[in-house]
Amino acid sequence: LCELVASVREPDPVWHDRAWERLDSLTKPPRSLGRLEELAARVASAQGTDRPRSDPSAIVLFAGDHGVVDEGVSAWPSAVTQQMMANFATGGAAINQLAGQSNSRLVLVDVGVDGDTSTLPGVLQQKVRRGTRNLAKEPAMTREEAAEAFMVGARLGRHLTFDDVRVIGIGEMGIGNSTVASALVAAYTNVPTNRVVGRGTGIDDAAFSRKMAVVNRALALHKPDRTDPLGTLAALGGLELAAMAGTLVGGASAGACVVTDGFISSAAALAAAMLCPACMPFVFGSHRSMEPGHQVSLVALGLEPYLELEMCLGEGTGAALGIGIISAACAVMNGMATFAEAGVSAKESTH
Amino acid sequence: LCELVASVREPDPVWHDRAWERLDSLTKPPRSLGRLEELAARVASAQGTDRPRSDPSAIVLFAGDHGVVDEGVSAWPSAVTQQMMANFATGGAAINQLAGQSNSRLVLVDVGVDGDTSTLPGVLQQKVRRGTRNLAKEPAMTREEAAEAFMVGARLGRHLTFDDVRVIGIGEMGIGNSTVASALVAAYTNVPTNRVVGRGTGIDDAAFSRKMAVVNRALALHKPDRTDPLGTLAALGGLELAAMAGTLVGGASAGACVVTDGFISSAAALAAAMLCPACMPFVFGSHRSMEPGHQVSLVALGLEPYLELEMCLGEGTGAALGIGIISAACAVMNGMATFAEAGVSAKESTH
Repeated sequence: LCELVASVREPDPVWHDRAWERLDSLTKPPRSLGRLEELAARVASAQGTDRPRSDPSAIVLFAGDHGVVDEGVSAWPSAVTQQMMANFATGGAAINQLAGQSNSRLVLVDVGVDGDTSTLPGVLQQKVRRGTRNLAKEPAMTREEAAEAFMVGARLGRHLTFDDVRVIGIGEMGIGNSTVASALVAAYTNVPTNRVVGRGTGIDDAAFSRKMAVVNRALALHKPDRTDPLGTLAALGGLELAAMAGTLVGGASAGACVVTDGFISSAAALAAAMLCPACMPFVFGSHRSMEPGHQVSLVALGLEPYLELEMCLGEGTGAALGIGIISAACAVMNGMATFAEAGVSAKESTH
Repeated sequence: LCELVASVREPDPVWHDRAWERLDSLTKPPRSLGRLEELAARVASAQGTDRPRSDPSAIVLFAGDHGVVDEGVSAWPSAVTQQMMANFATGGAAINQLAGQSNSRLVLVDVGVDGDTSTLPGVLQQKVRRGTRNLAKEPAMTREEAAEAFMVGARLGRHLTFDDVRVIGIGEMGIGNSTVASALVAAYTNVPTNRVVGRGTGIDDAAFSRKMAVVNRALALHKPDRTDPLGTLAALGGLELAAMAGTLVGGASAGACVVTDGFISSAAALAAAMLCPACMPFVFGSHRSMEPGHQVSLVALGLEPYLELEMCLGEGTGAALGIGIISAACAVMNGMATFAEAGVSAKESTH
């Protein structure tokens, strides 16, 4: 893991300048495509080119279960994690449709489902353990388990680039994981829990109170040390969160752009950013979710989302839409004619 | 025109209820896709189905010139309108790339370019006149010219639906048209001009002062009557704006969804909404542009954009990205499995 972290290289700044040189030569008023141009320039810099590509793209969806569901923090039973994996495998979930829309290959990974997914078509079997322990009572994972899950994601991120994948979206499925993400975001940012804990996938007032109490109890119990991001990840947990953090670092180490999804993925991105700050030029935002903690982590990560859709589903649904915007940015930068090529008068040239 | 306006029928409200019935049966926490679900429900209602489609889609780009450019309100010479039409025709502009990304056919229409576009491949020749008159000195168009340009757009909107087009984006090219749009938005909304006039495609302080003075002078000269939307459109002008308003009403009359672009298109949408309020259920927002007046007209139209990209290019670039979001919403509504189909436990069923 230390070796991987040390291998991430920040992009050569020369490509940032070349990207803007090309963007400003294209037949449009300079900077009139606003953040779409900034996005194109960032992708170009990360890829070390002035003709950035988003194709092929992939979305990796990591699934895991959570011992903390025993505390009554979720509106859904843990069994739904496995049931939804079956739904992903047969193409019936939201992410199947949205990955299709963004021309992204969907890669399903069992990194910690509390059940057997081995009979489901196309689900990579990378289970570190059957769900985490209950973080309200004990560390969710050992440090070794957290590192193992992280490396599952990191290896997958690197392997995708061997298939020439340029843009990787990250997504997750794990009943109870918004409780885990809340604890992690509070621990990593030091923001009070009442600004971080939200309603997840739709809990009532009683479950919301339990969730808030559980997060506070876990933070008091584990006293997470911000200077030890892996230890914090292990204590508060999330096998699928550790794997997502791994994909962010592993993808970045191979020069891929990695697109975050909503709140859960942003907690993983905080872990990745603290373990390996050099990965951040390769990390992209997508949408702003309804979870209050997402805004907290976006600010901490310095990511400004492109889409305001009030979504809070996860699975990589926001990342898929974000990949669509990245594809548009790349298409503009690659396909447009320059003023010279098109014979269009430059600004104020004849007036 | 009166006949067309009277032919627009608001959608049957039964489809709104059926749309939400289906959306709430799909394998996701209810409403967790937020505004993407609202968008799917609106498209479904407009199309009178619970399986809405965005394919095929088209973007119609109307071009026209403006006598008001004589006042020095633009950073670019009028000749650029025709030069950009050549660039559109050969595929080199931003809209060519973004229409391609959203799988939309791009339809180019000369409704008032001050120059000959007849030799350009694929440009529909529907010129009403070679540019408008200078609105700072006289009415930009006669009422008959405005109605003629409107009907060019309306017929095109209807004709596209004969080719089974379900979603139509509107775009424009016309050096000087942000001055025209500013005057129209101020006239239609009664908002002070200093909250409406912006920098367009990048003017300096001197040109900005001239633009503001020209808009104020035009409003004082023509004293536009809000209860006469066509007369206001004629006085302040924009052949391409009148045509866009026509497409909004014509498309709506044939049951197509029409997607607005940025500030210029929103001025056309205000004209359409005042002429034919029944068209609004068929009108969709896309992005929020950098032009201050866009926000003013979006509020007046009751449209909330999906994308925050600080774009201000026009051409239909924002509409193309908006069609991408609409396609994603339709894909979700069409392709997802229901809880029953997927065998996924409903919320709190076992917990």
